[in-house]
Amino acid sequence: MNFSPALAGLIGALKRLPGVGPKSAQRMAFQLLERDRQGAELIAKALQTALATVSHCEQCRMLCDGALCPICQNQARDASVLCVVESPADVVAIEQAAGFRGRYFVLMGHLSPLDGVGPHELGVPLLEARLDQQGVTELILATNPTVEGDATAHFLAELAKKRHIKATRIAHGVPVGGELEYVDGGTLAHALAGRLVLD
Amino acid sequence: MNFSPALAGLIGALKRLPGVGPKSAQRMAFQLLERDRQGAELIAKALQTALATVSHCEQCRMLCDGALCPICQNQARDASVLCVVESPADVVAIEQAAGFRGRYFVLMGHLSPLDGVGPHELGVPLLEARLDQQGVTELILATNPTVEGDATAHFLAELAKKRHIKATRIAHGVPVGGELEYVDGGTLAHALAGRLVLD
Repeated sequence: MNFSPALAGLIGALKRLPGVGPKSAQRMAFQLLERDRQGAELIAKALQTALATVSHCEQCRMLCDGALCPICQNQARDASVLCVVESPADVVAIEQAAGFRGRYFVLMGHLSPLDGVGPHELGVPLLEARLDQQGVTELILATNPTVEGDATAHFLAELAKKRHIKATRIAHGVPVGGELEYVDGGTLAHALAGRLVLD
Repeated sequence: MNFSPALAGLIGALKRLPGVGPKSAQRMAFQLLERDRQGAELIAKALQTALATVSHCEQCRMLCDGALCPICQNQARDASVLCVVESPADVVAIEQAAGFRGRYFVLMGHLSPLDGVGPHELGVPLLEARLDQQGVTELILATNPTVEGDATAHFLAELAKKRHIKATRIAHGVPVGGELEYVDGGTLAHALAGRLVLD
């Protein structure tokens, strides 16, 4: 199908969005141009505003507009508990689910020497400065339960131990509401190894 | 979760895209800002270019940049066969699937008096002008097989008959590769009523 240039350009550009293929991109382009030109303008403006203003929080590396993100600005959050995650989406997930009142540090990835991602790329010097200065008493390692996530967690745990700061790892086990029958072997092994005493 | 204003604005704007909910919008925003700022810029620019230049083809109402769409510009297409569809996506579907070499007319909807969509909103005067002037010998009615699509097709067929132009409706029946067992009753009734003689 030969679209005219601007239309073809828009469909091609929308394919850059994660999870959007040629068919969805076409549907989005038609929808925006036929029925929601206002929405299209809104998206274009929001993208440009975000590109111009959004960068990383100077303290926790979360995506945000100003120098500090809303969580780092919030004085009511407990600065002694620091939760390390791999991505901004993980911060959102923890904020929405748990009653966590501490602060965060976002690595923006995990250790992956083959891809050239070392401690420096993950902002580890910034994390070490925080551990040295801000009276952190517990470092919660909430990286993903993958090989790389585990390796990153162990690496960071060493940094904490050197400073006599408690390092903890989030529990891995059977998901709440899940059935043992359908849980994979690795998770089940984790769940058994991490069993707790019932009082 | 409290996002900073520009980030919240972008997530909100991306939710205007069809089929994108809060979770996908957040994922898209993070992906664009963290890993694909070039893509974000591309999308913003493509949207603005498209908003500024894309309108409707003067002849067939397809979305396009200039006065005439690529299909209407193409002199090799048979002007005597005119295929009427409801939306630009239908043109794309027919172009991709069938060896149709005629021309199109896009209604941009179907007759729906309760929503204030009458013949005028569907560009019927433009279609009538084409039927009067351009030597059309067959009008293929490829509106959707819904109540409104059928009503629209019958309405347009009357216009063609008045001008002694053959009006045809695309066949409705069992999809190729489908199994009778899983085809709904309405489709099956259509398939039986539209049976053809095997020579």
